[in-house]
Amino acid sequence: KMLGKVLCTVLFMGAFPSPAEASQGHISVVLLGATGDLAKKYLWQGLFQLYMDQVSSGHSFTFHGAALAALEPGQRLMFDVLKKLSCPPEEAPNRCAVLKDQFLKLSQYHQLKTAENYTALSREIETLLRQEGLKEAGRIFYFSVPPFAYTEIARHINSSCRPPAGAWLRVVLEKPFGHDLQSAQQLAAELAGFFREEEMYRVDHYLGKQAVAHILPFRDQNRQFLDPVWNGHHVERVEVVLKETVDAKGRTSFYEQYGVIRDVLQNHLTEALMFLIMELPANVSSAQEVVQHKLQAFQSLWGLERSSAVLGQYQAYDSQVQEELQEAQGYVSTTPTFAGVLIRSDSLRWEGVPFLLTSGKALDERVGYARVLFKNRAYCAQSGALRDAGHSQCKPKQIIFHFGHGALNTPAVLVSRNLFHPVMPKDSWKEAEARSDLHVFGQPLSDFYMYSPVKERDAYSVLISHIYHGRKDFFITTENLLASWAFWTPLLDSTSRQPPRLYPGGVENQHLLDFEMVSGGVAFTLAEPAELLNPGGQMPSDFRAIQSKFRQSPLVSAWAEDLISQLASDMEEAAVRSVARSGQFHLALSGGSSPVVLFQRLARHHYGFPWKHTHVWLVDERCVPLTDSESNFLGLHRHLLQRVRVPYFNIHPMPVHLNRRLCVEEDGGAELYAKDIVALVANASFDLVLLGVGTDGHTASLFPRSENGLEGAPTVVLTESPVKPHQRMSLSLPLINRARQVFVLVLGKGKHDITTLLSRVGREPRKWPISGVSPSSGQLVWYVDYEALLG
Amino acid sequence: KMLGKVLCTVLFMGAFPSPAEASQGHISVVLLGATGDLAKKYLWQGLFQLYMDQVSSGHSFTFHGAALAALEPGQRLMFDVLKKLSCPPEEAPNRCAVLKDQFLKLSQYHQLKTAENYTALSREIETLLRQEGLKEAGRIFYFSVPPFAYTEIARHINSSCRPPAGAWLRVVLEKPFGHDLQSAQQLAAELAGFFREEEMYRVDHYLGKQAVAHILPFRDQNRQFLDPVWNGHHVERVEVVLKETVDAKGRTSFYEQYGVIRDVLQNHLTEALMFLIMELPANVSSAQEVVQHKLQAFQSLWGLERSSAVLGQYQAYDSQVQEELQEAQGYVSTTPTFAGVLIRSDSLRWEGVPFLLTSGKALDERVGYARVLFKNRAYCAQSGALRDAGHSQCKPKQIIFHFGHGALNTPAVLVSRNLFHPVMPKDSWKEAEARSDLHVFGQPLSDFYMYSPVKERDAYSVLISHIYHGRKDFFITTENLLASWAFWTPLLDSTSRQPPRLYPGGVENQHLLDFEMVSGGVAFTLAEPAELLNPGGQMPSDFRAIQSKFRQSPLVSAWAEDLISQLASDMEEAAVRSVARSGQFHLALSGGSSPVVLFQRLARHHYGFPWKHTHVWLVDERCVPLTDSESNFLGLHRHLLQRVRVPYFNIHPMPVHLNRRLCVEEDGGAELYAKDIVALVANASFDLVLLGVGTDGHTASLFPRSENGLEGAPTVVLTESPVKPHQRMSLSLPLINRARQVFVLVLGKGKHDITTLLSRVGREPRKWPISGVSPSSGQLVWYVDYEALLG
Repeated sequence: KMLGKVLCTVLFMGAFPSPAEASQGHISVVLLGATGDLAKKYLWQGLFQLYMDQVSSGHSFTFHGAALAALEPGQRLMFDVLKKLSCPPEEAPNRCAVLKDQFLKLSQYHQLKTAENYTALSREIETLLRQEGLKEAGRIFYFSVPPFAYTEIARHINSSCRPPAGAWLRVVLEKPFGHDLQSAQQLAAELAGFFREEEMYRVDHYLGKQAVAHILPFRDQNRQFLDPVWNGHHVERVEVVLKETVDAKGRTSFYEQYGVIRDVLQNHLTEALMFLIMELPANVSSAQEVVQHKLQAFQSLWGLERSSAVLGQYQAYDSQVQEELQEAQGYVSTTPTFAGVLIRSDSLRWEGVPFLLTSGKALDERVGYARVLFKNRAYCAQSGALRDAGHSQCKPKQIIFHFGHGALNTPAVLVSRNLFHPVMPKDSWKEAEARSDLHVFGQPLSDFYMYSPVKERDAYSVLISHIYHGRKDFFITTENLLASWAFWTPLLDSTSRQPPRLYPGGVENQHLLDFEMVSGGVAFTLAEPAELLNPGGQMPSDFRAIQSKFRQSPLVSAWAEDLISQLASDMEEAAVRSVARSGQFHLALSGGSSPVVLFQRLARHHYGFPWKHTHVWLVDERCVPLTDSESNFLGLHRHLLQRVRVPYFNIHPMPVHLNRRLCVEEDGGAELYAKDIVALVANASFDLVLLGVGTDGHTASLFPRSENGLEGAPTVVLTESPVKPHQRMSLSLPLINRARQVFVLVLGKGKHDITTLLSRVGREPRKWPISGVSPSSGQLVWYVDYEALLG
Repeated sequence: KMLGKVLCTVLFMGAFPSPAEASQGHISVVLLGATGDLAKKYLWQGLFQLYMDQVSSGHSFTFHGAALAALEPGQRLMFDVLKKLSCPPEEAPNRCAVLKDQFLKLSQYHQLKTAENYTALSREIETLLRQEGLKEAGRIFYFSVPPFAYTEIARHINSSCRPPAGAWLRVVLEKPFGHDLQSAQQLAAELAGFFREEEMYRVDHYLGKQAVAHILPFRDQNRQFLDPVWNGHHVERVEVVLKETVDAKGRTSFYEQYGVIRDVLQNHLTEALMFLIMELPANVSSAQEVVQHKLQAFQSLWGLERSSAVLGQYQAYDSQVQEELQEAQGYVSTTPTFAGVLIRSDSLRWEGVPFLLTSGKALDERVGYARVLFKNRAYCAQSGALRDAGHSQCKPKQIIFHFGHGALNTPAVLVSRNLFHPVMPKDSWKEAEARSDLHVFGQPLSDFYMYSPVKERDAYSVLISHIYHGRKDFFITTENLLASWAFWTPLLDSTSRQPPRLYPGGVENQHLLDFEMVSGGVAFTLAEPAELLNPGGQMPSDFRAIQSKFRQSPLVSAWAEDLISQLASDMEEAAVRSVARSGQFHLALSGGSSPVVLFQRLARHHYGFPWKHTHVWLVDERCVPLTDSESNFLGLHRHLLQRVRVPYFNIHPMPVHLNRRLCVEEDGGAELYAKDIVALVANASFDLVLLGVGTDGHTASLFPRSENGLEGAPTVVLTESPVKPHQRMSLSLPLINRARQVFVLVLGKGKHDITTLLSRVGREPRKWPISGVSPSSGQLVWYVDYEALLG
């Protein structure tokens, strides 16, 4: 009955509802790139679905395909696509046919090239609405164009094609949104010049996939069961995986610039991971709460290092690139087509839980899923077959959000039956039958409660509907995007010169791409097979830490990451030796940015470090409260002390803040620290002092021409820095020189000049305080990275 | 050839070697309880094996069976046993027959009852040696008698039967060595009155089992591989298991007094666990190093609580007890015949790794093993069958020390092939063939490298040989024994009134005894089946925390353990609420012993506690350095702060130690603390203050008739305690009364009198400082356990 009425109305009106009925106003949808691949495959179909769904919503619609092509050929191309639009199976064929006819009538092609074109389009919409007596509700511009075209189009829309006051503008953007943090920031800044944040809808089509979109609702609806177990005490690991069988053939011009991390991990897999690991907002459909919690989750992630990932490339890739991009025969690409990445979080909830993100082309199967594997916390007293029977607690427990494809070939949510019976919304998810013939994730399907969507919907249809409804929680905000790029960019940078492991593709990959977690990172399980070795030249990983002399003392040099790992090992060795000798290890550490990576490495990789017996002292401190972001101690606390187990008594921040004031001479902070050192450190001789070097040759907080601390007694002094905050506290040079070992860490191109200078000058501490470091009976070792050493 | 010579020598001498040959001297072995079960089953055979092994060692032997029976019947009984001694398969039957004949001639029976009997035995040995012209090497007394007889026998040996100077005495003791810490201490003290530590050989026959004895050598010989993985980052769990099919029938008179924990877990399983988890000594055959490392391992274990164990009892047990012990029909025993216990260690190495000890009678199979299961640290990119094929890193990885029985039916060491190829001593362990038809521990046997002993030896034979060689590392020292009892006794005490779950026995147990780790402890997976419910009366676990009023304020009361868990939950709730309200939680904690259990509970069970936003203050402190064992802060640090993540800046120890001196008025420590409170705590109103009560009614360090702190300003004061250390620092009563919430914890019988008194008196802080606690606008809650409340 309803259907009859709707149809009659539509037919009666021709294309538009009467003004009285169109109380919601008119929506113009402009699809830029209307004849491109994405539009052909998904977007027109999605727009048609929107029309079918919303035809009786009270809104009226027009659809404007646009491209650079001239009117006539563009029109023909576009209508070839539109004619092929299909009716969804659940739609009555009759109604669908009528609606399709309407849809075609409501759609037209535009050439959009110049500012005039945009002005003309805008006028056309206005004229049409005036003619029909319609109020304008809003305009949707869907950018299905390459990113280089974004700015130009955005400028035109903003200047010539905005809807009148009272109507909204929604611009829909398709990735790539930059290729690293900097380019993403630049693009975001440009777009921000044309659109307000709430006008932009950045698409990650994974957010439209039903199984991905249901992660947060699932967590919300099953809070009661999940709350106690959704943490590192119960979760063994989280995997987010997208495996493809296809390769990059035909798309290498895109792929060669991006690679698998930018194509899949930075966006799709990261977003799915965030839904799993973010703190659950009170209201999971509040876009604001969701994005806020997501940003917090990004903040909690450990920075990625080169060792966080394993990279692969299917063997045929190089020749495909050579062919498609007309590269020379010997061209070698380092673009990865496979990546396995280990991500970790600092949050108490996820401490110790590995998050493994994996994606690749030319693999053995096509499947995508996010999987939460729980720890086995049971002991089954009865052995043998019974242990694996029924819903034994000793069988694996997992929750899987199955995006699609694979053996199941449908979006699905799976929950191990020995875990709990989940709450699922009955109107949108239905329970599937338990088939025991099918094995998924190491278990027969009958071990799971399995749910699949009542109505399977394409991601783009879903997202287009969300755009229509203004559901911004299904799109990537600028903050979200930049947080993701900030997270991924260091890995992209550090692996850009790294040759990926070659793999044959398909089932022949065998165990070649299996990888393992080793000492804080991941590595392929199998050794590099000789016959597949990349024939390319010397790669950075082939460099070894070189050892020689610098200023008459031992020099260790390597690329920064290798250097840090060598330094951390040497420190652990020194600590173990010291504890064996004296039961204690007195370590004086410098602040600043260089040691941060070192601190992180010590915390994450050196489980044998005798922290319990280590005393941590500061080499120098800025005269700010310890909780000030400028405080050396705060950095040390955040990057090291919070993560290891140094007893409270063994932590010795400098007393720069006494009597609620900072470094006042008469409060005697420096003397107090000196007394503590004398009382606790045998002979006031630190076991190890770690120093850095400033571009002016300063070390600790001993600056050139300092009145204090360069000579005289081995003590603690107040000094003046040429840069803010000016007041400092520092160990004096004579005190540093009493140490058993002094390690000096010098990193980065910025230190090349001072490094070169230091290699030439003698001992002149008043000019270059660092040159005065020479332990009277201890050992000095320089750790200088290639960039500082070689420029 | 060698054999011929030995035989000739033996035959020529009759029973004794000539004086010239017996350069090593004579050894007398006295087996007390020579006709008992253990002697019949193992000890005589072990002594015969010793004789066979050592006949040509240069030592001569006599074997003296002893018991309470008179000479004639005792002799007959004993020789009935000796005649049945068997020849080991690897021994030449000829030689064995001759040696057995000799052994019988060298053995004789003695009635040992009175002091005179012992004197007579000693004289007899001396006479014999004089006659034969032999030097005495030593005497072994093997106590195969019930423990109540120990003291008497020990006294006789010490006073009447010691060997002459220059010869050694070794007394061999069989468990039980007490039934809890106190009785074990008493027995140890008594024995120490008769024997020196080095004279005592306490047998735990598991230390003679080949697979147990090989744990340390295995760890030693495979250091290179194991060092990096033998820790909580790689190990998922450790299981030590002894399952029996037999029940206690016929032994209930023993069993009813001991139960499975004393019978198996406290000794056998604990010792095997210690070998696995102790830090590896540099020299694994140094008895001293081993015991020292073992004691350290004991120190690192978390205390056991009632929730650390699940207990069961097979259904037929009660009727067996009724029958064998002539108990009344309705008699209900709470003696457990099954136990699963979760043990955890505090050491950095084992942090987070559950150690599960399980043993039971009337189970589905007979098997014993110690199993180290490693975490899966791999991601296998290829799915399906390949993931489980070959030596895939995604298959389980484990190391199993198989004590015996089970499907393998031999002692064995198994190492997963995807783990590493172990180093094994070829002379004593041989590699077994890979059978894929046999499944063990969830994998086909072919997945393991498996080794079994070249020569399988009975544990008692092994231990008797070790006694002969003086290898004390294979026996339990007094320290070791007491450490183990100190560890187990709290669990025995707290579960003594707990009804065990009844189980039918055998394969019918199904999943009934499966248990899981839940919130720091373990619990049976299946709910208590109604038909098996113990019909016994009200048990402690049936009590609920009762709530009413005490001194006009809310009262929570329960048994101590339940009370603590309620208090911890209430504290977490207060913390979460406070952080939600103000972003912070200011918590002031008391020292002393009562809160220790609370601190442990908070650290182990309350993962949701917002530690990151919590400030920890002290209610009071003793004027000792913070690292002094008397320091309240040290206790807090050890039991709580070391285990949670309170930022350094949020920890506020009282400044009792300024300028290298303690609580000197003019150093202004109290004023300093008060200033810190004012600066950081809004309105100087703590969110929660936790107090205790002394038997004299003191609270914090505010003692009756104190001159400071009972009234006046809300501040921090120095006070005098009637007990040492006298000097204290304390929050004043008015400061405490500014708090939003005050919880008072009162535990134990010792507090019953003061509790009763407090229930009657009014507000008289000068007499009873605690009576002055009444928050001006906050809430006061009393947490008083039943013992304090009801006496």
